[in-house]
Amino acid sequence: MPTFVDLLEYIGTFAFAISGIRLACQKDFDIFGAYVVGLATAIGGGTIRDLLLGTTPFWMLQSSYMIWSGIALLFVYLFRKHLIKLNNTFFIFDTIGLALFTVVGIEKTLNMSEDYPFWVAIIMGTITGAAGGVIRDIFINEIPLIFRKEIYALACIIGGVTYYISQLLFDNLIVVQIISSASIFLTRVIAVKYEIGLPHIKGEEHE
Amino acid sequence: MPTFVDLLEYIGTFAFAISGIRLACQKDFDIFGAYVVGLATAIGGGTIRDLLLGTTPFWMLQSSYMIWSGIALLFVYLFRKHLIKLNNTFFIFDTIGLALFTVVGIEKTLNMSEDYPFWVAIIMGTITGAAGGVIRDIFINEIPLIFRKEIYALACIIGGVTYYISQLLFDNLIVVQIISSASIFLTRVIAVKYEIGLPHIKGEEHE
Amino acid sequence: MPTFVDLLEYIGTFAFAISGIRLACQKDFDIFGAYVVGLATAIGGGTIRDLLLGTTPFWMLQSSYMIWSGIALLFVYLFRKHLIKLNNTFFIFDTIGLALFTVVGIEKTLNMSEDYPFWVAIIMGTITGAAGGVIRDIFINEIPLIFRKEIYALACIIGGVTYYISQLLFDNLIVVQIISSASIFLTRVIAVKYEIGLPHIKGEEHE
Repeated sequence: MPTFVDLLEYIGTFAFAISGIRLACQKDFDIFGAYVVGLATAIGGGTIRDLLLGTTPFWMLQSSYMIWSGIALLFVYLFRKHLIKLNNTFFIFDTIGLALFTVVGIEKTLNMSEDYPFWVAIIMGTITGAAGGVIRDIFINEIPLIFRKEIYALACIIGGVTYYISQLLFDNLIVVQIISSASIFLTRVIAVKYEIGLPHIKGEEHE
Repeated sequence: MPTFVDLLEYIGTFAFAISGIRLACQKDFDIFGAYVVGLATAIGGGTIRDLLLGTTPFWMLQSSYMIWSGIALLFVYLFRKHLIKLNNTFFIFDTIGLALFTVVGIEKTLNMSEDYPFWVAIIMGTITGAAGGVIRDIFINEIPLIFRKEIYALACIIGGVTYYISQLLFDNLIVVQIISSASIFLTRVIAVKYEIGLPHIKGEEHE
Repeated sequence: MPTFVDLLEYIGTFAFAISGIRLACQKDFDIFGAYVVGLATAIGGGTIRDLLLGTTPFWMLQSSYMIWSGIALLFVYLFRKHLIKLNNTFFIFDTIGLALFTVVGIEKTLNMSEDYPFWVAIIMGTITGAAGGVIRDIFINEIPLIFRKEIYALACIIGGVTYYISQLLFDNLIVVQIISSASIFLTRVIAVKYEIGLPHIKGEEHE
């Protein structure tokens, strides 16, 4: 039976895949292309993390990520006329995925035998959460959204720092996980609600 | 002396490299850029496969892939005015490459000590056959062709399933390889001849 | 205390990061996106090299690359109105980085236990020096500059061949490193000064 964390991970996978599939369909990809983009959005970040850590990519050990991406494809097909109304729900699911994937990435790094410093774990958490969206945007030939708009990857970094501080304060791993995930979730929700973005550097004449 | 399979692999490498070099030249790449795109088209899929499998990329152990990509560059330069007439030949070569690369990818995965399930081998075969073209299209800044048109990667998946079924039915590896390659080759040839493509999901208003 | 080679490596990292950050800012990336593009330009080549070699990416073992990319971001912010005047200085720094990264990549490959042939070391040196710029251009959604203009990656290859010849002639590693780096530096400086580029293959009608 899947645990509660498994369930959250399926929700995250589903939501990430949905975001890739929808963008691919808007670019007139066929269903195979849409599936690949959805899958890459869902598993791309964790795959890069695992390659950097020198370990077997997680999805090669368990077929559920392939399956949930397939369910996401079916879902987009069946409900294609109603998806816009669900945008808020997808946003919440996507942010749950972001929070959870980041914490998974941090802990996987800390559990490696190599004994990486904590800043490496924060970067791996951020890559786990945010790099799938970058791959998605490269596949659909757009400038990666997270580099231009919204606070997304920065929420992962804040979550990583929060994880580091919490584990110094609390002995209980579950408490640390909840605080860290919540900090990511809330950072992103608040940033989107109040339209808080990062500054841009301007002023240099273009060459 | 190279074996028959080696010869087929050189043909595939040559054809994949040609496709990358031609597209690069159309985008006004210089000869170095064209060579890199050709090489990446030819070896990109197998490189991603080997990184995912955690093994040394195949082309680092044998210089023939570099050399055949160089021959492809020379060929495009010498026959640039006559290449269009050869499009059908290139299509056949390219499809031989697709079929063979897929089977090579499946078998390499099955021969790893990790004992991956068969669906992983099918994915690795598909990546071996189809991912080089995705890298090519990212380099030339186009949306990957295989995500939008034609049955390409799906032929690899069909070939992988065919491989799985054949090996249950036949004891002879050569027979399994031939049936699987033929299924890929025929799927693609028939799909292109009869202009069979995959459906697209439409109907969602664009955001 | 950092050695002289460390200092050159920091200069190279700084210059590579600056080039990524400036291009990202021109594309209206936010400061996080600009930092990521700068970092990817600086460490991307070495990361691909280390993944291909099957070893832990160098920047995961030492935080200085993260820090120098951050200093580069601050530098671009503070001096954004004056950067164009510094273009010649950046060009020199960038070319120092190219030369040094290439030599580092060659030597790391030769020092691996796998005993790769020298042509693999030349390719790894070229990837170390030139692939960061390719990743940068993919992130900003442009066709990679080095595939179209200027002699860049070819300078790395020339430097690799020079390294090979020098080590046959000289017993002293420092001498070999200096001759090889100088050949890269001079090739690029001369190519840019005299606007020497590689030929393009034309003449095929576009499909």
